[in-house]
Order: sequence, then structure tokens, then C-alpha cells
Amino acid sequence: MAGPIPIIGGTGALGAGLARRWAKAGTPIVLGSRSAERAEEAAARVREDVPGAEVEGLLNEEATQRAEIVFLTVPFRAQSENLNNLREALRPGQILVDCTVPLAAAVSGKATRSLGVWQGSAAQQAQEMVPEGVTVVSALHTVGAPTLADLDAELGEDILVCGDRKADKARVAGLIELVPGLRAVNAGPLEMSRIVEQLTPMLISVNVRYKAHAGIRLTGLPDGDHWA
Amino acid sequence: MAGPIPIIGGTGALGAGLARRWAKAGTPIVLGSRSAERAEEAAARVREDVPGAEVEGLLNEEATQRAEIVFLTVPFRAQSENLNNLREALRPGQILVDCTVPLAAAVSGKATRSLGVWQGSAAQQAQEMVPEGVTVVSALHTVGAPTLADLDAELGEDILVCGDRKADKARVAGLIELVPGLRAVNAGPLEMSRIVEQLTPMLISVNVRYKAHAGIRLTGLPDGDHWA
Repeated sequence: MAGPIPIIGGTGALGAGLARRWAKAGTPIVLGSRSAERAEEAAARVREDVPGAEVEGLLNEEATQRAEIVFLTVPFRAQSENLNNLREALRPGQILVDCTVPLAAAVSGKATRSLGVWQGSAAQQAQEMVPEGVTVVSALHTVGAPTLADLDAELGEDILVCGDRKADKARVAGLIELVPGLRAVNAGPLEMSRIVEQLTPMLISVNVRYKAHAGIRLTGLPDGDHWA
Repeated sequence: MAGPIPIIGGTGALGAGLARRWAKAGTPIVLGSRSAERAEEAAARVREDVPGAEVEGLLNEEATQRAEIVFLTVPFRAQSENLNNLREALRPGQILVDCTVPLAAAVSGKATRSLGVWQGSAAQQAQEMVPEGVTVVSALHTVGAPTLADLDAELGEDILVCGDRKADKARVAGLIELVPGLRAVNAGPLEMSRIVEQLTPMLISVNVRYKAHAGIRLTGLPDGDHWA
């Protein structure tokens, strides 16, 4: 795939962390925000942290049109609003990678608890809301934003990827694995996201207890390219 | 803790696998079953596989009374029945380690899907059903029975332990970590079991895709004894 990687909600913690990792790997990035000014400010911060980074800041709607695969990294409380706003911007054939986790913190509850989502998961809610012909893949729930943003921290963890078509997941996996130390694992159909999204509150619970930034790694998988 | 480790439902796949690993580590085991004959048959099979194993087969009710910490390794469809049967056998001060996973397979559904449990999780259902003074800790949902039973397979994975008192979890962790290659991780209160129990259908989904026996490992945790 040619072109940059658009990150919608790129001014948030997860988006900012991903942007730094991809930029460091030499991948062009477009950070999207509801405010063009804040998008450009966030892009400037990435350029400051990663010399030579190719990063642009744009309105979400514009960022969405820059590539076929678009990452949505907003908090759960803003997911529906963002998907509504992107209805005119998304085109059939695009893949929306939903990274949303329905933490109870979205409604002033605990970050170690989650909300029930009517459709089963945030990713399934996204699939219901995107225009016809747009496919949702879910990923990147378990990698911590602080760990991503700290470019000195060595990564060595898995990203569980859910989606209904393996070919779509493989394309997303290719982008995820541009970041050294991240391995994308095929966790199953999109409905499996209702389990994968739950890993985040569990990891937050572990992080509190261990004063750590825990990630997930699956043991026992065969070596080599899982996506070939 | 003196005494053997009682495994209720010890004739099933998970119980049989655990028994082999503990026996190999030199820990005495009591396998419980609804049938004393089947319990003794299962114990004989462990003795055959692990020379020198100290394994006894008893009725569940008798096995339960052999130690303070008792492991319940029955399928979800048999969990309530077993807990009902154990009501007279369990005594205040005991810890019941619930390993139950509410797979949809319990009601002829898929093993990659789960059932909603009214109390939030199988472990919380167990806590509601045990006599007063008995504490439930949940653990051992993610380690595969075939991997445990294959004594040549090297383990290197985490067991997420949920419970409301750290001291109880630490005692259970000590038993789990008698098995070389298993690290017990404090995942939080018992209610967190609703997330941890969901890992099993996700791992089953991964196993189908990779023809593997996947386990879970958390990255980023500090070294050393997590339970001191």
C-alpha cells in the first residue's frame, strides 16, 4: 500500500504513541483531529521527537481520505461521534482499524471495568456505523500508549487482530508489524473483539498492582509469517 | 500448606493434566470424582505416566476434605451441580480455586464463544454457591489441558489469578508455581474473572487458526517474586 497511515484521533495518547513508532520506522503518518490546528501541533511534536519524521496534521475527514487503511484511536466516549463525522469521508473499499476499548471510565467509572456495548463490542458498533463497503478490523487494544510513546522502551508483544476477512487482517498486520517488536496475531472474526477489547481493563488492573506497563504475548504459536 | 492437592473433577482433561504436572513436581495429589472407581482409575493412569507419583482417587466430597485449598476443574455445565454436592463437604476457611470457563460449548454452542453468567463470571457464581467462610479464587483458565498432559512440552506461560484477598491468591500462586514454567500473575479482584475466563474462547479461536496450543504471557512485569 502506498501513502501515509492516517490516524484519526491522532492527538490522543494511543495515536501519538503509534505515530512516533511508525515515524521512527520511516513510515509517513497523517494525524487527524477535529481541529486542524491541534492536528498540526501534534504533528510538530512528533517531528520534534522523531527527527526526519514525515508527519502531517489534518482534519479527520481529510486525513481519512489519504489512504485505504485508516486507524481510529479515539476514546470510547468519542467513537460514535467520530464515526458519524466520518460517514461522508469514508469510501467503499477502505478498512477502518478500530482500536476503541469500552472502558467504564468513559462514563466516570473505573478503568478496570468495561461497559457492555449493544452490538457486542466497540468494533462491532463501528462496523454498524461505517458506510457500506467499508470493513472494520479491530486491533491495538493491548499495547500501552506510554510504552509506545517512549521510543527507548523495547517492545516485544502481540497485537490481537479481529476481523471477518483474513486478507483485510493481513494488510493491517503488515502495517502493525512495521513497528519493531510488535507481532500481529489473527484472533478470529470481528465478534472476537468483544473478548480482545476486555483485555485492556484487565491489563490496567495488572498495571496498578505491579506498577508496570504490561502487554500480551501468546505462547505456543508457530514461528514465521502467520499471514502468508 | 501440608497435605495433598485435591482436584475436584480430576478425571477430566484439565484435572488430569494438572495432576501429571504436580505429580511430576513431587506434590501429592487427590483426584476427586463422582465415582470412587473412576477416581481410582484416573489416579492409576497418573501413576503409570509419572513413576513415583503420589496420587489417590476419592469421591469428590472426600477429596475436598483433604486440604485447605481445593481445585475445581469441571466443565461449566457441571459446575453448579458439583458446587451443590460439595456444600456439606466444604468448611469455613477453605479456598476453592475455580477453573471453570463458561464456553458456549456447554449448551451445544461454539467453543470460541462464551455464555453470559448472571453473577458476572463462573467464579462469581461459585462464590455465591460455596458455604459462608469459603473463599473463591479463580485461576488456570488459559493453560491448555493437552499441553499440561504432555509432560515433554515445556511450559512458559502465565496463569492469571483473580480473587478478593491477596493473601489467598498468594497461597494459590504458590501451588501453581510448583509447576515449572507457570508464573502466577495477580490479575485483580474476583470480578476480573469475567475477563480472564473470556481468554479461553479467544485462545481456542487462535488455536484453530494456527493449529497450535497457545497460552498467555504478560510482558513488562517486574522480575522476582510477585507475591512477596
